[in-house]
Amino acid sequence: MNKVRNVTTLHPFDEALALTPVPVSAQEHGRESTRHWQGRTHPLYANMVGPFGGITAAQALQAVMQHPERLGEPISFTVNFAAALSDGDFRVESRPVRTNRSTQHWVVSVSQTDPAGIESVVITATAVTAARRTTWSAADAVMPSVPVPGSIARASRPARVAWIQRYDMRPCSGEIPADWNGAEADSLSRLWMRDDPPRALDFCSLTALADVFYPRVWRRRALMTPVGTVSMTVYFHAGAAELAATGEGYLLGQARAQSFFNGFFDQSAELWSRDGHLLASSHQLVYFKE
Amino acid sequence: MNKVRNVTTLHPFDEALALTPVPVSAQEHGRESTRHWQGRTHPLYANMVGPFGGITAAQALQAVMQHPERLGEPISFTVNFAAALSDGDFRVESRPVRTNRSTQHWVVSVSQTDPAGIESVVITATAVTAARRTTWSAADAVMPSVPVPGSIARASRPARVAWIQRYDMRPCSGEIPADWNGAEADSLSRLWMRDDPPRALDFCSLTALADVFYPRVWRRRALMTPVGTVSMTVYFHAGAAELAATGEGYLLGQARAQSFFNGFFDQSAELWSRDGHLLASSHQLVYFKE
Repeated sequence: MNKVRNVTTLHPFDEALALTPVPVSAQEHGRESTRHWQGRTHPLYANMVGPFGGITAAQALQAVMQHPERLGEPISFTVNFAAALSDGDFRVESRPVRTNRSTQHWVVSVSQTDPAGIESVVITATAVTAARRTTWSAADAVMPSVPVPGSIARASRPARVAWIQRYDMRPCSGEIPADWNGAEADSLSRLWMRDDPPRALDFCSLTALADVFYPRVWRRRALMTPVGTVSMTVYFHAGAAELAATGEGYLLGQARAQSFFNGFFDQSAELWSRDGHLLASSHQLVYFKE
Repeated sequence: MNKVRNVTTLHPFDEALALTPVPVSAQEHGRESTRHWQGRTHPLYANMVGPFGGITAAQALQAVMQHPERLGEPISFTVNFAAALSDGDFRVESRPVRTNRSTQHWVVSVSQTDPAGIESVVITATAVTAARRTTWSAADAVMPSVPVPGSIARASRPARVAWIQRYDMRPCSGEIPADWNGAEADSLSRLWMRDDPPRALDFCSLTALADVFYPRVWRRRALMTPVGTVSMTVYFHAGAAELAATGEGYLLGQARAQSFFNGFFDQSAELWSRDGHLLASSHQLVYFKE
């Protein structure tokens, strides 16, 4: 029996991740391993201006994941948001700059060409992949005890931002302020989260999920000041097998800030599988105005 | 009165930071802003094999600090340790890839040439610098209450590692195991720290200080398994003025792990000035064997 592939059933996240190889002249001296890819922002992951940062981070990581010379799986990934992406095409360049016996170091960049034809870097990133071996393991970050996702109503956020609809988020505590009254609070939020529609977890989707927390300064101050992530790092504490075992299940995420100082604050997050495996820890530095 | 400059009084940290500009042909198309520097490992910051990672990170950041096109001060810095440095010369390349109105994004790499004349990347790094503005500020990470540094004996560690002698460390809790008996414990350590000889704090020395904590897996397991930092990120929560105000004073540092999984663990650290300003938060991913 022939199966007819129905392209319309592709998950929007996979549509967004689609990168097309761009052939490049072989003359780029000393850069034989560099691969170029063409991508495009996806309207279903749009933010107020340009795309959701988490989807851009995932697209940058995807340029590592689909590089034919990749060794092992991501263990560390840092992405720097150098400029707001414009809706439309972008170009990704990924390059393994050092390959060791069991680890590999990557440099990635995303650039866009403006209407005048000038190409500019919008993202810089570095990644480390590794062929893991089974060792003694232990998780010290204890998963907080919270109600099960089925008992919590889905968060309803303003529909004017498309990407929010791509995540089923069930706030446990520290929900986005209902009243923007400037009343200071702690900066901690906990929520269940998964893709909508549900999608089996992988490194790229976990990277995007690490960025779904609304900005800590909004919670801390109950003031909706303009913000923008400057840099985000994700450490992966699971391999592909553990991510696959999580499947389409909810993750428990937790985020909080440590310092707000003269225009920038940090934000640390942990993401656990429902059965308590700490899958990733993530940190970011975020610009805020005033 | 003429002052005779006595070069022998230069602090070893400043000796280690000395980078000499290397002229490069102007033909590197599209890379006009790239600067190349020559550096050298310093014997007083030697580790078991090659140099202390913190000094290498500081040298990489120094290539940003002394770049003539730098805008503002570091707010975020990520360094990836792609290979062990060999003792001797290295080359640093720093390039501002995007300069905005108040932020600037940097790509840095360190490379070494082996005896056969083959140059390889040993460090990749990215940095963000920014012209900060005064805003509402708050520190949520509370400085722990510990005895004053003068009341704590200086740590005496094995003299076989040179760099340890470059830091005056006063352990408050979670000292390196006296007995390597495999008894599991928590992964938290707190200590006062400063350069030895004392030296006024700046971004580069703060970066190095963020890496002085001994590997968390040693504390957690009381087993001295081989380890190596793979990636380290430092977020700066202070400007040059706040660092200068700290002067040569002790910083209180705290580090702990969240996850140990199949060969890698994470390590998060905070560094406060003695008067309680959180100067930096730092995170790293570390390889461990078995």
